[in-house]
Amino acid sequence: MRIIGIDPGIAIMGYGIIDDDCGKFKVLEYGAITTRVGIKKSIRLKEIYDGTILLIEKYRPDVMAIEELFFNKNAKTVITIGESRGVAILAAVNCGIDVFEYTPLQVKQSVVGYGRAEKKQVQNMVKAILGLNEIPKPDDVADALAVALCHCNSNIMNMKLGSLK
Amino acid sequence: MRIIGIDPGIAIMGYGIIDDDCGKFKVLEYGAITTRVGIKKSIRLKEIYDGTILLIEKYRPDVMAIEELFFNKNAKTVITIGESRGVAILAAVNCGIDVFEYTPLQVKQSVVGYGRAEKKQVQNMVKAILGLNEIPKPDDVADALAVALCHCNSNIMNMKLGSLK
Repeated sequence: MRIIGIDPGIAIMGYGIIDDDCGKFKVLEYGAITTRVGIKKSIRLKEIYDGTILLIEKYRPDVMAIEELFFNKNAKTVITIGESRGVAILAAVNCGIDVFEYTPLQVKQSVVGYGRAEKKQVQNMVKAILGLNEIPKPDDVADALAVALCHCNSNIMNMKLGSLK
Repeated sequence: MRIIGIDPGIAIMGYGIIDDDCGKFKVLEYGAITTRVGIKKSIRLKEIYDGTILLIEKYRPDVMAIEELFFNKNAKTVITIGESRGVAILAAVNCGIDVFEYTPLQVKQSVVGYGRAEKKQVQNMVKAILGLNEIPKPDDVADALAVALCHCNSNIMNMKLGSLK
């Protein structure tokens, strides 16, 4: 199964593409779609949408895993992240791929085993699990890989639960 | 000038399409794109995007006017409205039309002349200004027409200011 993980944002949208072969992970690509402050928000949203479509068309992931918003951020930030999430999710649907959403708590629980883990712990685990030489930068990229890993883990759990039935 | 006004939301997205001939208004269409609770949010976002594209292709507005979020709503609502806004704005950009955003304060100020006007006052003014037989229902539709009117008024003001320069 191939997963594209997304950490949404209007200025920086982190992404990471992972192959999950029954728990063996291979990183295909990671990075960030960035848009410039000062250009119209509508154009920035289009750049995020178009960039996400390009990634999906290039790597043909089976699913998108996307981080849910952290409610404690300020309202203005929440809105623009919401808008970015909207267009990223739309890109997935318009390419016919399914979308799964995970809270920061679920991501931390899944990757570190502890829902209140620090950001640095999550990043170190992402680096270790995926066998990377360094922590991907900026943070949004590591977060995108983390949510992709979270989907892999929940998928493995579901398979195990399924086999127990 | 033809304006499509949008009041964004995931369950109900109000819209209203108005022709503004130098301050003479003609309503072409108004209504709501609705999506069902219980289906996946990603599909609902696609329905809003596709519905908005259809409206733009049918009526060919020159601009989209869209209401900015009211920050006092709860965080969960803000996020889903943000996502809906994101895909509505993207629909406009992907059809090559410009997007203008107005706060509820600006809309009330413009339509009623008073930024703290009650919802009912705004609705009555929308009905009166546009010569409608009744207040459009649900509220989201009246709000969409109000934001379209707000754009017309700010455009008239800009023209007047321009002619004063």
